[in-house]
Order: sequence, then C-alpha cells, then structure tokens
Amino acid sequence: MTIKISIDCMGGDHGPSVTIPAAISFVNSEPGAELILVGMEDVIRAELKKHKADAHPRLSIVHASEQITMDDTLEVALRRKKDSSMRVAIELVKDAKAQASVSAGNTAALMAVSRYVLKTMAGVDRPAICSILPNQKDGPTYMLDLGANVDCEPHHLHQFAIMGSVLVAAMEGIARPTIGLLNVGTEDIKGNDVVKQTAKLLQADHERGALNFFGNVEGNDIFKGTTDIVVCDGFVGNVTLKAIEGMARFFKGVVFSEFKRNPLTMLGALIGRGALRAIAKRLNPSRYNGASLLGLRGLVIKSHGGADAYSYEWAIRRAFEAAKNDVQAHLSTMIAELMPRVPAQEEPSSTI
Amino acid sequence: MTIKISIDCMGGDHGPSVTIPAAISFVNSEPGAELILVGMEDVIRAELKKHKADAHPRLSIVHASEQITMDDTLEVALRRKKDSSMRVAIELVKDAKAQASVSAGNTAALMAVSRYVLKTMAGVDRPAICSILPNQKDGPTYMLDLGANVDCEPHHLHQFAIMGSVLVAAMEGIARPTIGLLNVGTEDIKGNDVVKQTAKLLQADHERGALNFFGNVEGNDIFKGTTDIVVCDGFVGNVTLKAIEGMARFFKGVVFSEFKRNPLTMLGALIGRGALRAIAKRLNPSRYNGASLLGLRGLVIKSHGGADAYSYEWAIRRAFEAAKNDVQAHLSTMIAELMPRVPAQEEPSSTI
Repeated sequence: MTIKISIDCMGGDHGPSVTIPAAISFVNSEPGAELILVGMEDVIRAELKKHKADAHPRLSIVHASEQITMDDTLEVALRRKKDSSMRVAIELVKDAKAQASVSAGNTAALMAVSRYVLKTMAGVDRPAICSILPNQKDGPTYMLDLGANVDCEPHHLHQFAIMGSVLVAAMEGIARPTIGLLNVGTEDIKGNDVVKQTAKLLQADHERGALNFFGNVEGNDIFKGTTDIVVCDGFVGNVTLKAIEGMARFFKGVVFSEFKRNPLTMLGALIGRGALRAIAKRLNPSRYNGASLLGLRGLVIKSHGGADAYSYEWAIRRAFEAAKNDVQAHLSTMIAELMPRVPAQEEPSSTI
Repeated sequence: MTIKISIDCMGGDHGPSVTIPAAISFVNSEPGAELILVGMEDVIRAELKKHKADAHPRLSIVHASEQITMDDTLEVALRRKKDSSMRVAIELVKDAKAQASVSAGNTAALMAVSRYVLKTMAGVDRPAICSILPNQKDGPTYMLDLGANVDCEPHHLHQFAIMGSVLVAAMEGIARPTIGLLNVGTEDIKGNDVVKQTAKLLQADHERGALNFFGNVEGNDIFKGTTDIVVCDGFVGNVTLKAIEGMARFFKGVVFSEFKRNPLTMLGALIGRGALRAIAKRLNPSRYNGASLLGLRGLVIKSHGGADAYSYEWAIRRAFEAAKNDVQAHLSTMIAELMPRVPAQEEPSSTI
C-alpha cells in the first residue's frame, strides 16, 4: 500500500530549493511513498523541471497561494493566511488525502495551525513536540516536550510519557521502552512538586505494567542513553535542546579552527580525514531531523527551519515511518487505555 | 596583604590526593595566598610530606575529625557530623580566619552547611550557585542558578541577576555586565509567568541605570556569549548544565574512538596532535572549575567532585580572585541598593 505524505514546500529558510530536491530523492528511494507537494504551483513545477522530475508518477502538486513566514504572528498564521502552504498541507491530512504532513515552517505557527485544523486527540490535553538525540549507545534518545508547553501540570507530563512511549514502540520496535523523568537528581526527593507528582503517576502505571518507568534521570542521561524516552516540560526541553545545539556548534567551530591553524594541523586533518568525516557523520544533526507533533488527530512532522535537502529528507522519512508504523492508531489505543480521567480540553497557556 | 583560603581537604571523589597537590601548586604560584588545610591532620601531613611541602610557611593545618560523604543526607551533614572538614572549613570563614573556602564535597550538603554556618546575606532570600561556561567569544558566560533553587519566584531570579552582575563586575572587571534571562524565545511574549514577571523587574532596573538587562536569551546564547550572565531557575540551570556536560563527554568519546579506529586515522591524530591538544585545552572544563555559592555571609566555592589536581587548583584560584576583588562587599552594597523590598527570610522549598 502506498503511503501519502503532504509536503509544505514553501516552509523553512530555503523553501522549494530544499524541499523539492529532498522530496524527489525520497520518493526515488522509497517505492511505497507518494508525495503531495503543496505551495505555489509555478514555483514547484519549475523546481521539479530543473531536476527533471516534473513527470514523476508519485509526485503531485496541490496549489496554495500563500506562505507563512518566520515573522508571521499566530494571528496571521491562523486567521489571515487561510491558503498558506502549511495549512493546505495539514488540511490534506485532515481530509485523509495524506497520512502525514511535513513542514520546516515556524514551530509556533505549525503547532497552532495543526491544532486548529486537526484538533487534539481524544484524551490528550496538550500536544507535545518530540525529537530524537544521539546517545553513547549509538541509538536515539527521544525527548519531549521541546517547547509546545512552557507550563505543565503533572497530568500533562504523564501524557507526554505515554505518547513518547507509544512513538518509540512504533518507530523503534521496542516493546516496552524505558521512560525517564528529567530532574535535578535521581532520588525520589529531588525536584519540584510537578516532577514529584508526575513520578507518582508514572510509578503507578509502571506497577500495573502499563508503562516502563525507569525513574528520574539527569541532563547527562540524555546522552548516556539511560532511557529510551526523556520527559520534561516544554520550557526545560526547549532551553536544553537549544543549549545542546549551541554547544555542538561551538565544539564544531573549535575543531575546525584548530585543524586549519597551520600546515601541520591541516596535514593531520588531511591524513585523518576518515576520522573527521566519521565524527561529522556520527554527530550530524541531519540524521535526527524531524520532530513529531504528538497528540493531534493526524501526523505532523516538523523539520528544522535551516535544514538542507539531505536533512529535510530525513524529516520526510520520519513522517513516512510514523505513518507506516501506524503511530496514530497506537496512540489512540494507548491513551484510551491509560488516561484515567480526562480533564476538560483547555487552551495552552503559551506556545513557542 | 595575604589572602587566606580554607580548603576542605577531605571533600570530593579523591580527597587529599587531589586537594593537597592542588593547594601546594597554587600557593607556590601565588605569593599573596595562604591556605588553611582542613581535615584529618595525619592524612594531610603525610600527603604534604610526600610532596615535600610539610614545612611550607603559607600552608597550615586545622584538624577536623569527620568527613561528609557523597551519600550523607542533609540531616547527617548538618546535625551529626559537626566536626566535618567541610563545616570546619566554612567556620573559618565565619570566624574571619579565612576570606573564602573551597570544597569539592556534595553540593547539597555544602549549600546547607554554608547557609547554616554563615547565614544568608541581608536582602537575599536564597543563595544561588553560579558557574562559568566557555563561549565562542573565548570569554566566560556566567550562569546561575545551577541547582540550589528548583522553584523560583520572580524576585528570586531578580536577586540572582543582581548577584551575577556583581560577581562578573568584580571578577572580570566589566563595569556594566550584560544580563540575559533564559527563555524559550527572545520576544517579550515568550515564556512562563515567572520569567515574564522577572523580565519586568529587570527592565525597571535597566531603565533607571542600575543593571544592564539585555532581555531574553535562548539556550544557544550561552555558547554564543550573547550576554555576560545568563539567569535561570535552579531546575533549568541544573538540567542544562548536566546536559551540556553529558554532550561534551559524548563528543569527546566520538572524537577519540574515531581517531583510534585505524593506523591512518591514528597517524592523522599524531600529525595533527597540536590541533587535538589545542581543542582539548579550549574545551577543557578544568579551566572553568569552581562554582560560587552566592548570597551567603562569606565566600564559598564549590569544585567539581571529580576534579583532578589541575582542575581543583582553578577552583582555589577562583576563591582567591573573588576574595581579592572583594566580591562580598560589592554584593552587600549592590543588594542594599537594588533590593526594593525584602520579603521575610524563607526556607527554600527544596535543594539539590
């Protein structure tokens, strides 16, 4: 069976010059995929022609006359630009014409438009953003929330844990993924009240065999790969993720400048280029591009805004794999099973 | 004038085998310093003898019969082990026999014992932990709180900003250090209520020329060096710092394993060893060892528990510089000036 993914071709820092080549490359590598390219038809067509892919049988175009920029307010994204490529791409998911959507646009707008168009899944109070990070075990650590919810109650973090667990089970084929609760120490007495209450909820699920709760984890456990999933509120997650990204750029800058310092170090780099390339590959954030917006009535994957075509293709792949592994159905089942009492749907106090 | 520093020789993962060589090396490099070595007298004396420094005129010993371990509860640290090397070292500061104290012991115990013995500075509700991180401008970014206060109100973060500002001014000789408030975005509307209220307090100080408030900063700004100081609550600070440390270890592990992979990469590393050494030096966390416990009636510096002698010596240096630059007096003045209304002294809801 073919899996259809809608692509917001105009989103991100580079728009069609990145999204179209990525789409072509992906569709060529994946015979089971069909991609719907959403955006300005003439621009998309020209870009496809440039890559001699304008007659590809598994690439179609849906025209959208507007696009959401990085500076657009949520008001503009939601109420004014009703024919934006982002919104039209998500509407295709709502109308069951696509099984997932990918966008590199503004995160806050993507979350707001996705919530508005798709609505939140029954039993979920607040959708969350989940991404993956590399770890020392050469596997991925899934972390959420990364910024959709800056103020969280225990039941929100509890839901994040459930959603993360379902995602990892479906994507990685791990039957009972381990869940860590991000905290300032591993002992039960550590942390603030929200975290302590969350631990109790997760522990109760653990004891009745519903979730595999490891306990508290600390910041360094993300990279140790202590647990498959790290749960935190969106404030902590967002700050931590950006600090990690900043650190990686800083580190890369230092490595580059030192190997370029003089002819001898440059020779060392030349001879050791296999190592440098392997290092770059293992630490390449491209492989980890594609954050999942979890808890919506449809699959939406957010690519990094500055992604190149190689990196964007990974985001498309994540959308494809999520659809193929039926993440949505698993989420619905698990949430219906585990969510003891569902508080009335509420609006988030704030989103990034 | 000689500056006296008390050293908790028994603290940390390695105790006297690290603290004593570091003390000897520091006192030899700094003619204006006198160090008081606190701990088991016979152990200290034996270690000094080993390094032929048992007759050093600027090294003295104060015996303490107990030591606080990493596993000791706060109850034990505070009520039971009244003759611990940590406590005796801090009491020397209280009794004005030393101008600062250094310990590599358990952070929570060190903060609790310091608060108990020294008391909190007038006008300060809660002491905070401030450390430095390297940035792309090759300067330090000061960050606080790193874990003393997991739940913070706006006036706490406000006080952290004031204390950080005074510390940077005194230590780095920067007249008006810039203050960034850690948030999920730079716009005023971003973040949770605590952060938004804090921004208002800092903005008011900025407008009357009392503080140099830059505005909101994000996680990556820590490494960009966007501001001299980054202010956050202890939960966010602790998680972020540990994530950064974890990432650095992960990165280092990848670099090492790839350069050791085969004879060619090893040759590259050999020829490019100047670069590798420079990288290691620039990214060496040792240079940044020594976190300040700010807001107490006395200077206390916390070394990393796993510090080696080279790294521990940096922590002693920070204590020395802080005392030399009269950080305490500057703190008192600035806090008296800027603290508009002081809420009743309260106990922290939790400490790490």
